[in-house]
Amino acid sequence: MEGTRFSSKLLEEAVEVFSGLPGIGRKTALRLVLFLLRQDKEVLGRFGETLLRLRDEIRYCRVCNNISDREVCEICANPHRDHATVCVVEGPQDVLAIENTGQYHGVYHVLGGLISPVDGIGPDDLVLAPLEERVKKGEVKEIILALSTTMEGDTTNFYLFRRFREYPLRITTLARGVSVGGELEYADEVTLGRSITNRTPFEETFRF
Amino acid sequence: MEGTRFSSKLLEEAVEVFSGLPGIGRKTALRLVLFLLRQDKEVLGRFGETLLRLRDEIRYCRVCNNISDREVCEICANPHRDHATVCVVEGPQDVLAIENTGQYHGVYHVLGGLISPVDGIGPDDLVLAPLEERVKKGEVKEIILALSTTMEGDTTNFYLFRRFREYPLRITTLARGVSVGGELEYADEVTLGRSITNRTPFEETFRF
Repeated sequence: MEGTRFSSKLLEEAVEVFSGLPGIGRKTALRLVLFLLRQDKEVLGRFGETLLRLRDEIRYCRVCNNISDREVCEICANPHRDHATVCVVEGPQDVLAIENTGQYHGVYHVLGGLISPVDGIGPDDLVLAPLEERVKKGEVKEIILALSTTMEGDTTNFYLFRRFREYPLRITTLARGVSVGGELEYADEVTLGRSITNRTPFEETFRF
Repeated sequence: MEGTRFSSKLLEEAVEVFSGLPGIGRKTALRLVLFLLRQDKEVLGRFGETLLRLRDEIRYCRVCNNISDREVCEICANPHRDHATVCVVEGPQDVLAIENTGQYHGVYHVLGGLISPVDGIGPDDLVLAPLEERVKKGEVKEIILALSTTMEGDTTNFYLFRRFREYPLRITTLARGVSVGGELEYADEVTLGRSITNRTPFEETFRF
């Protein structure tokens, strides 16, 4: 596909924008473009206009930095949520994942990335000011660090821990352990080790 | 993901248009949208505008029905191609695949689909008029049927054969056989059978 000479510059341009997406090669990109060309014209119109609206209209909550249609998102504006507990996540996809569990009633803070020296991403590239503002106001009693257990996640966890430990609040992190429904023999050693160290009283498992 | 309540209607709308693409579920769609939001605004702009241009400006060659920027595509306008040999294919992706071989110097006709009674697609849903026009003018000496060996491809082959056999031209189809570089034991029986029936003089293989 690399040296392909397309019959149309416009087709080539469309294949190029689609193959700029992660996990989509030029062959798949061509398949997607030809699929769209076979649909009604409105499908292409809606697709294109949605992308332009994403460019022009997308906003981020002033309080938690999550994607929002309003200045303050629904979660931050909800008086029934526990505003003293802030779960710190990397991106909007993590807010969705945690909301889908139905187990969390606090609020969030979206960093918009993780510290990654290899990629030249430092603490200044993350959104931290609105979180610090909330903390300084004394609104926050607990920060839950809910980042991936990757090198970048661990680095960011450590940075946030050092930055916020001077304030009078609890800093916690997600429990690590064997997956619910997972087979013991397939759990990796580090996870299995941590799940033994942090073992839970049996009666506590009745809550779920 | 199904019952997910998104923090933004616009985000939800964007996830919906992406998950309308074949092979892209809602999780992947969300990942793609968040990826685009992390890029420069121009990336979203270029993407959106390309889709709107696809809607408004895409054209099909008057002669062969392939996607084209002009009224007559580059291949049909090229006097060095053999205009008496027409390779009939399902879609533009097949033209690209055959052009990439560098082995074909004739021209094409793009049907824009295959006959599929199950999906309610009949001969009238294919683009056939410009091909018949070329044939009636006596310009065509050979039609190569280069369709997939699926039920739909075979049905369409048979329909085209019956429709064009009254004209003074050769109707051929692609050679079927064991893949070049393929291991014999993994070839399916029908392919292997056909490759024995239609065996080729050994010296002819020297051409490649």
